[in-house]
Amino acid sequence: MAAVAAPATGLAQAHDKPEPAQAAPAPGVTHILARYLVQARFEDLPQSVRHEGARTLLNWVGVAVGGSRHESIDCAVSALSPFSGPGQASLLGRHERFDIMNAAFVNGVSSHIFDFDDTHLKTIIHPAGPVASAILAYSEYHPVSGKDFLNALVLGVETSCRIGNAVYPNHYDAGWHITGTTGPFGAAAAAGRLMGLSEQQMVWALGLAASQPVGLRESFGSMNKSFNPGRAAANGLFAALLAARNFTSSDGMIEAKRGWANTISTKQDYREITEGLGQRYEAALNTYKPFACGIVIHPAIDAAIQLRNQYHLGADQIASVDLRANPLVLELTGKKTPRTGLEGKFSVYHAVAVAIVEGAAGEKQFSARAVNDPRIMALRERVHVQVDPAIQPEQVDMLITLKDGRKLHRHITHAVGSLEVPMTDRQLEAKFTDLAEGILPAAQIRKVMDACWSVADLPDAAAIARAAVPPAT
Amino acid sequence: MAAVAAPATGLAQAHDKPEPAQAAPAPGVTHILARYLVQARFEDLPQSVRHEGARTLLNWVGVAVGGSRHESIDCAVSALSPFSGPGQASLLGRHERFDIMNAAFVNGVSSHIFDFDDTHLKTIIHPAGPVASAILAYSEYHPVSGKDFLNALVLGVETSCRIGNAVYPNHYDAGWHITGTTGPFGAAAAAGRLMGLSEQQMVWALGLAASQPVGLRESFGSMNKSFNPGRAAANGLFAALLAARNFTSSDGMIEAKRGWANTISTKQDYREITEGLGQRYEAALNTYKPFACGIVIHPAIDAAIQLRNQYHLGADQIASVDLRANPLVLELTGKKTPRTGLEGKFSVYHAVAVAIVEGAAGEKQFSARAVNDPRIMALRERVHVQVDPAIQPEQVDMLITLKDGRKLHRHITHAVGSLEVPMTDRQLEAKFTDLAEGILPAAQIRKVMDACWSVADLPDAAAIARAAVPPAT
Repeated sequence: MAAVAAPATGLAQAHDKPEPAQAAPAPGVTHILARYLVQARFEDLPQSVRHEGARTLLNWVGVAVGGSRHESIDCAVSALSPFSGPGQASLLGRHERFDIMNAAFVNGVSSHIFDFDDTHLKTIIHPAGPVASAILAYSEYHPVSGKDFLNALVLGVETSCRIGNAVYPNHYDAGWHITGTTGPFGAAAAAGRLMGLSEQQMVWALGLAASQPVGLRESFGSMNKSFNPGRAAANGLFAALLAARNFTSSDGMIEAKRGWANTISTKQDYREITEGLGQRYEAALNTYKPFACGIVIHPAIDAAIQLRNQYHLGADQIASVDLRANPLVLELTGKKTPRTGLEGKFSVYHAVAVAIVEGAAGEKQFSARAVNDPRIMALRERVHVQVDPAIQPEQVDMLITLKDGRKLHRHITHAVGSLEVPMTDRQLEAKFTDLAEGILPAAQIRKVMDACWSVADLPDAAAIARAAVPPAT
Repeated sequence: MAAVAAPATGLAQAHDKPEPAQAAPAPGVTHILARYLVQARFEDLPQSVRHEGARTLLNWVGVAVGGSRHESIDCAVSALSPFSGPGQASLLGRHERFDIMNAAFVNGVSSHIFDFDDTHLKTIIHPAGPVASAILAYSEYHPVSGKDFLNALVLGVETSCRIGNAVYPNHYDAGWHITGTTGPFGAAAAAGRLMGLSEQQMVWALGLAASQPVGLRESFGSMNKSFNPGRAAANGLFAALLAARNFTSSDGMIEAKRGWANTISTKQDYREITEGLGQRYEAALNTYKPFACGIVIHPAIDAAIQLRNQYHLGADQIASVDLRANPLVLELTGKKTPRTGLEGKFSVYHAVAVAIVEGAAGEKQFSARAVNDPRIMALRERVHVQVDPAIQPEQVDMLITLKDGRKLHRHITHAVGSLEVPMTDRQLEAKFTDLAEGILPAAQIRKVMDACWSVADLPDAAAIARAAVPPAT
C-alpha cells in the first residue's frame, strides 16, 4: 500500500470525535478499503493503469456526448430543471447546466443510453458511468488537478468492481442491476477522495453509499435501465458530501451481519475487496465495445469489417456470406427483417450486412435509416447462419463468396473489444468521433480527446467538461 | 374501488404513446395498485381514515419540528446548501429553504431522529416520514388543496404499508430497513397522485421507486438510520417527477420475475397489495409513540404515569417501585446508571423514575439534564425489576410502596400508544407541544396543530409548512 499522502484540500472538515478508549478491533473490510482509498497515490499507479484510466475516461465522454440528445435526456432535463441548484456543472453534449448532483445524474444516464459504455467483463459492471459522472461534475465545482482526477477515477472503478467481484454472480442472478448497486460505492469513493475525506469519513461515505443501491434487471428495455448508473452517480456524490460534514454511518456497512453484502447477496468473498490493493487493478481490466449492439454478434461484425477492409469489398461483389456461429447468435439476434434501429441490434443479418457496406457498426448503423437502406437490405438476404455448438460464443467463422467465384475466409477467436484484442486507442478515437459528430464541431472533438489522453497533465480537470459542451449558437 | 376522479391538474404531460395492438395481459400487481392510486377519491375515504390521516400528519410535523435542531440536521443542511435549487420548500422548524427534493430529504431525516415517529405495527414501518416529507414539500411548489393533500397522504401510507406487508418479515429479517425500502413507493404514489399522473405514468413512478430502495439495518445507531426515510422521500419524489415527463420504467416492477419483491425478499404475498383496496385501510392502523424510547418499556412508563397522576405522587413519598415485567425489559433496557440521555432510553430504572418525577417520558426526559437530576437518580435506585416470562411484552405489573406504608398497584395489559389503547388526540397535542416548545412560539404551535386537524378544509396545504417554521428573529 502507498504511503500516506498529504491530505487533499477539499470539503472535508476535521473529524474531531474522540476515539473510543478501548482497543480497536482488527480493521474490517470497509475500513481496509477506506484506508486504501484515502492513502493511494497517483504516483504509485502503474503507467498501464493510468493509460487504461484515460481510455475509460475518453470512452465515457464519447458515449455521454453521443447519448445526450436521446429523448430520455430531454425528459430528465425538463423534469429536473425547476429544481436544480446553481449551474455548477455541465451536461455533456448540451447547453444546460445543473448543480453537481443533478448534472452527475444526467451525465450518468446519457452515458448508458446506447448500452455502448465500458464493461468490466468479470462482473458485467459498467463502471465509468457512476464514477466519472460524479467526479467530473464535482471537479467543475471544486478545482481538481488532472492527476488527482485520474487517481480518483481509477480508485472509484476499483471500488465498484472489487465490491462487484465479492458478490457476483449471485447478486446479479438475484435480479440486481450490478452497475447501479455497486456504482454508489465507486462514486462515493472517488468523490470522497477528491474531497479529502479522512479514513473515518470515507467509512461513513461508503456506508451511506451502501444504503442507496440502485436498479433491478426487470427495468432492462426501458429508460429506467439508464436511470440506474445516473442515480448511482448522484447517490455516491450525495453520500460523500454528507460524510465530509461528519454525517455518520456505521463502521462495517459492507461486511457486517446486517450490512450490504449479506443483505443483498448470497455470496460474499471479501478477499476480492481487500487483497492486493495497490498491487492488482480491476481498473486495468476495463473493456470498451466497438459495436453498438450485444456482444454476441461482435465476432461476426469484426470478421465482416476485416474482410471488407482487406479486400476493399463492395456489397455488389458479394454472392453470399456464410457464418458458422455459436447457437446463442441466432437465439439472441436471429431477427430476419428488422424494421427499427433497435430491432437491427437483434439481427445478425443486418449487423453483418451494414458492417460490410459501411465498415462500421456504431449507433448510426443501428438506425431506421440503416435498416431501411436498400443496399443493406439486399445484402442481408445473402447472409446465412449455420449454428454449431463447437464454435465458442467469442468465436465465429465467416466465408464470403464473391460473384467472381473467389472465396474469402476469416476465423475470429476473440473479437476486437475483448480483453485479448482490446480496441486500439485509434479505434477508441474513431468510436468517439462517430458518437460526437453532429453534436460537437470537429475541432472540439479533437480537443476533448486530447484532453482525455493528457488528463494527468491538466491543471484543471474541469477542462474536459467544458470541452464536451457544444459552442453557443 | 372508487369511480374515476377528474384528473388533477399538475405536472403530468399527456401520455401519448400508442397502446400495443395485441390484447393486453391481465393487469399485474403494479398496474392494479397504480389504477387505484390514480382513481381513489377523498370523498370515498371513511371519516375514521381521514381522522387517522390527520393524526399521522400532526404527529409527523411534531417530530420533524422537534428533531430539526439535532446536529445531524446541521450536518445535512451545511452539506447540501451549496447545491440546493431555489428555496421552494421549508425545512420544518428552521429558517433555511431548499428545493423540494432536498427539503423532503431534510424533513424526512428530522422526523426520524428521535425514533419518535409513527409506526405501522404489522411491519414496523414508519410510514409518514417518506410520504409526508415528499408531499408537503411538493405542496409548497405546486398549490394543493387540503383534501387532495390528505387523500395523497393516506394513499402514500397505504402503498408503503401494503407493499411492506407483502414482504414482511423476511425482507426485514434479511437486513433491510423496511421504512426506507418501501418509502420510495409511498412517496412516489402520493406525490404522483398530486401531480395528476396517468395510470401508465404511475406504473413508471412505482417502477423508478422500486429501483431506489434505501437503508440497511446495520446503520441503526448512527445518523444513517434517519438518513433512510429522508432519502426515501426524495427518491419517491424524484421518481414521480420523472414519470410525469414520461421517463419510462417497466410495467411490472413490483411483481415481475426480476422485479422488486422477488429480488429483495424471499416472501411475496401480493394479495396484501391488491386485495381490498379502498375497503380496508392499513393507514387506519398507524400508531404513535407516547414515549421517546423503545416500545418495550412503554407499559412500565404508562403504569408509572397513571399512578403518579391518580395519587398526585411526589418522589419523596416513594419507598420502592417493584415491577414484574417480561424478560425483554431487562435484556434491552437494563442499564442501571445511565450517564447520557441516549443511555437513559436503555434504562427502565431511569424511565420509571423520570416518569414519576416529571409525569412524562418525552425527548426532554431522556436528556443529560434528566439522567443527572439528583431527585431522579435517587428514585431510580428504589426501582426494582423482577422478570417473569408469564408477563407478555405488552404488559407490566407495578407495585409502588409509599413511605407511609400504602401500596399502590397497577396492571397494564396494553400500554397507551398501542392499537388497543391509542393515544388520544389530546395526548398527541401534548406530545407535539413538548417537541415544538423552544422552537415555535406557543401561539404558532396552536396554529400548526389546528391546521393539521383541519387539513381537509385548507384551501392550500402549504399553510402547514409555513406554520411550522419559526418567525424570523
